[in-house]
Formats: sequence, structure tokens, C-alpha cells
Amino acid sequence: MKKKNKKVNAAIIIIGNEILSGRTQDKNIAFIANWLNSKCGISVSEVRVIPDIENIIVKNILTLSKNFNYVFTTGGIGPTHDDITAKSISKAFKVKYEYHKEAYKILEDYYGKIKFNDGRRKMAKMPRGSKLIYNPSSAAPGFITKNVLSLPGVPSILNSMIENCKKYLIKGSKVHSTTLNIYTVESNISRKLGEIQKKNKKFVDIGSYPFFRLGKIGVSIVTRSTSLIKLKSVNKELLRLMKSKKIKILKI
Amino acid sequence: MKKKNKKVNAAIIIIGNEILSGRTQDKNIAFIANWLNSKCGISVSEVRVIPDIENIIVKNILTLSKNFNYVFTTGGIGPTHDDITAKSISKAFKVKYEYHKEAYKILEDYYGKIKFNDGRRKMAKMPRGSKLIYNPSSAAPGFITKNVLSLPGVPSILNSMIENCKKYLIKGSKVHSTTLNIYTVESNISRKLGEIQKKNKKFVDIGSYPFFRLGKIGVSIVTRSTSLIKLKSVNKELLRLMKSKKIKILKI
Repeated sequence: MKKKNKKVNAAIIIIGNEILSGRTQDKNIAFIANWLNSKCGISVSEVRVIPDIENIIVKNILTLSKNFNYVFTTGGIGPTHDDITAKSISKAFKVKYEYHKEAYKILEDYYGKIKFNDGRRKMAKMPRGSKLIYNPSSAAPGFITKNVLSLPGVPSILNSMIENCKKYLIKGSKVHSTTLNIYTVESNISRKLGEIQKKNKKFVDIGSYPFFRLGKIGVSIVTRSTSLIKLKSVNKELLRLMKSKKIKILKI
Repeated sequence: MKKKNKKVNAAIIIIGNEILSGRTQDKNIAFIANWLNSKCGISVSEVRVIPDIENIIVKNILTLSKNFNYVFTTGGIGPTHDDITAKSISKAFKVKYEYHKEAYKILEDYYGKIKFNDGRRKMAKMPRGSKLIYNPSSAAPGFITKNVLSLPGVPSILNSMIENCKKYLIKGSKVHSTTLNIYTVESNISRKLGEIQKKNKKFVDIGSYPFFRLGKIGVSIVTRSTSLIKLKSVNKELLRLMKSKKIKILKI
């Protein structure tokens, strides 16, 4: 079977009052999105940040797992009272919330029998039927339940685990992306840019993002497509547009 | 009327493919959430990051504006083809998408008649009945339509405008917050912490967030409440717990 232009998408649910309160700056969205794009050809189509409240987690898991190929959750899989991700996913999918044998063994081996207390044992409880996402940095595994992959919220631990998600994911077509940086204001090119997007809307996405650098106003024009050929052709059009407007392309 | 414990909440919608692709690290969620908490006593209850697609924006505006006191949108109010926030909000609320007289005048004065081209004029188009959120850094105003406040995506511009949202917002009770930083592992305190949370769940939220610092593992215990008295009493309990476990409180 030819796998041309296979679109695979995902949603991310950030579970955590600390992001909603503004106390902590989220770093997981960009990291997961970049990894999924570059390593798996999977596009993130929606992100939600929600509080540590069971019925809200349940509702969002149900909605997003139905609407997207994969859902990634981050946060709420530690040993404390506010870690309720596994329990909530069990409720969402109406499966038992119970000790996962292998996870229990991993954690017991890691901590030793004496230090394997209630809180730590809690991290071995998962929705029945879950498979493990191994954790090379602090033992406590993540897990996948149906199409929902649950990872911890601490970025360094999450980052160390992400490669272990790969075996559970079907790859999509890689989305190629190029960026043209120019010193101009958006409104100087907006009409023409709109025309180029309209003509190519089936295969190429064009985004326009203003920036400030060294006291000057500029625009990053980002093109994205699963087809390298279409991408090149749109970029040729963009270069022609810049030439006609006497706008220089910046090197970085 | 006494305004004790008045809960006012908000949602944030980040409109932007550049966040979903992982290309850009979002900075607006933490900034808006912090500002709402500290300046207005408003809690952010949900955040969604969605793509620049009209029917998706419409759907999310409708859902969230119904479920929360306020909705903040960021992004999609510039001059290019991918800036469709104002048009989408018009559709959501079934009002005309048209030139806002004052916004038109502000922009015309700012650019001068000759340079006031199509792209720039687009930034004066808004849902009928919107009121302006002035922009001290680059003229193009944001706007409020019913309970939805629309701001640009560029953090520096958004930051310069946020104070101008204040006059449209009803204040809630300030949520006070304290943080105890300790060197220990979560599972060492998780059971007791859960008990303290359970006993105080009506008035105080307790969050537990692991961190790494100078090669050591620690936990930040964050307590949040609209009542300073309840907060102090919970913190006393926490200090007693730490003392009993011989855990030192870090100074920062």
C-alpha cells in the first residue's frame, strides 16, 4: 500500500493547575509537537490545558480520543493526591483502575521492598489493559490506554521518555516546512500572500508571523506541506514576490 | 453588596498554527493567567490551542463563552490571510463583520491616508458592537465582543495592551498563594499531604510539584485560597508535617 499523504493527528491535554495559574511556564506543548512533527509525521491539531479535576479530565479524554488519532496527556501521574490522571482515564474508558503487574515490579525493584510505600505504589496503578511507556530517568512508567498516551508533567522526565512512545504510533507523512525571514511589515505583502495561499490551499499552508529584531520589524513566512515539490513551487512564488517588492531575504 | 469569595473565571484560546506546530513556544498563557490572577482575581479554568480554521474558532468561541465568565483570544488579528479571528467571532455571534469607525480612524491617523492599504484596513474590521482594547505599542486595537476579549499573538504587543482590558472585567476575590520548597521526594509526604488536602478541600487547593535543583530532588508545595486565614492555617499544618519528618524548608 502506498502511504502518500497519510494524515495522522494528535491532541495534547496538559493536566495541571500550575500551568493554569500561570505559576509554571509550559514547555511540553512545543516539545511534544516538534517531536511528533519531525519524528512521526504526526500533526498536533488541538491542545487543552485543564485542571486536576476528575470529571473534567474524563470529559476531555472522551472528546479528544474520539476526534483525533492520538491523545497525549502530561501531568498527574505522580504519587500525590493531585495525581489523578490514571484514575480518570480508567473512568473515561470504564475499565478497572488497578495495579499493573510489570509497572509494580519495575517500581518495587527500583525503590526496594522497604521503601516501596503507598505513594510509590500508587504510580503502578493504571487503567486495565494499559501498556507501559518506559521511563529511563525516574522509573515510574507512563502508559498507553487505547489511543491515549500518558506522560509525566516534569519536562526533563517527559523528554527522556518520548522515544518510547514511538512503537505505539502509526507514522504519518512528514510535513516539510520552510521559513523565509524578511524585514518588512505584514501589510506590505498581505494581499499577494493571500493570493498565493488561495491558489495553493490544497497542498501548502502559509503562515505569516511578525517579529522584532535589532529594533526592526520583520515577518517570518512559514510554508508547510507534505509535498516537497509543491513546497518548492510556492517558495519560488514567494521569492518572486519579494523580488518584485525589493525585499531582501534574511539569512537566518 | 459584600463581595466575599466571588469566583470569576476565564478561558484562553490561543489561535495559531505556529504554536501547534511547535515552531513557537507559547508565552501568552502564563502571562495572561498571572495577570488575571494577580490583578483581577480571575482564575483561568481552561486553555485551548487551536488552528487558524474558521469553523473550529467559531465552535470554540461558542462553547467557551458560554461556560466561562470571560474568554481571551490571542492571535489572528493582523493584516494577513491567516488572521481570521475577528471574522470568526462575528460568525460565532451572528453579527456583522464590518469596519469599526474608531478603529478605522486610529489606524488611518497612525499610518496616514496614503499608507493605509487593504491589509491595514482589515485590522479595523470587527464584529459589530465590539468595543476597543487600545494598543499603545502598534496602534491596531484589540476588541471585546460580548464576553470575548481579542488580543494579538505577539507577546510584547499583548503585554502592552493587557492593562486596557481591565475596565471591561468584573473583579473576583483575589486568590492568595504560598509556596513551600523542600528537598524531599513526593512519595515521602504524599499520604499526609493528601489527608491535609482532604480536610481542607472546601477552601484551600494544595498542589505538589517536583523539581530538580543543584542535582537534588525537591518538591514545591503550592497552596491557593481566597481566604488568607484558611491559607495560614493549612500552612501551619504543612510546617508541622515537615517538622515531624525532619524536612527543612528552603528559603527560595
